[in-house]
Amino acid sequence: MYGLHGRIDATEGHGEELAGHLVAGTQELGDHGCLLYVVSRREDAPDAVYVYEVWTDADAHQASLELSSVQDAIAGARPLIAGMSERVEFTPVAGLGLPAAGSPPP
Amino acid sequence: MYGLHGRIDATEGHGEELAGHLVAGTQELGDHGCLLYVVSRREDAPDAVYVYEVWTDADAHQASLELSSVQDAIAGARPLIAGMSERVEFTPVAGLGLPAAGSPPP
Repeated sequence: MYGLHGRIDATEGHGEELAGHLVAGTQELGDHGCLLYVVSRREDAPDAVYVYEVWTDADAHQASLELSSVQDAIAGARPLIAGMSERVEFTPVAGLGLPAAGSPPP
Repeated sequence: MYGLHGRIDATEGHGEELAGHLVAGTQELGDHGCLLYVVSRREDAPDAVYVYEVWTDADAHQASLELSSVQDAIAGARPLIAGMSERVEFTPVAGLGLPAAGSPPP
């Protein structure tokens, strides 16, 4: 499996709108090797949006960037992005709620 | 919902062992308000272990620290911990694979 986590800062006052764009593109991803895609925010940093992703492998993640739903989400989000940081890539080992690599998420 | 993500560095050569301790305590957490608990590692930093957690709320997370399974996992892990960093707390909004706050993880 392949995972990544990072922070995306929206332009001032657009944290909620940015999070909405990022969530919008996710439902179809389960059919393309995405096991987890969680969009989060912070009360103490309302323009910060965190995205945590787990994929069957890095290739599935890379291929997803070509999906029209993802490109639409990125197009909608891009004007609202002020910066990206805290990006880390990793290999999920095990845990609770982590679908087995072969099964689609609930 | 309440979430947190952080990096735990093991003492040299103990990354796998540390990850094992952290995974061991997780299965029971689903009964105590844990929605996601993912333990990950990095090929380029073999002693780094990342933990991503989502809970129904912060109180459920706090209460879990009193569970004997969690205390056993912490006791096993503590001698192997060299440092903790990159800790961030957040509020999960939505996404793929994120169980609704009321339903236990798969």
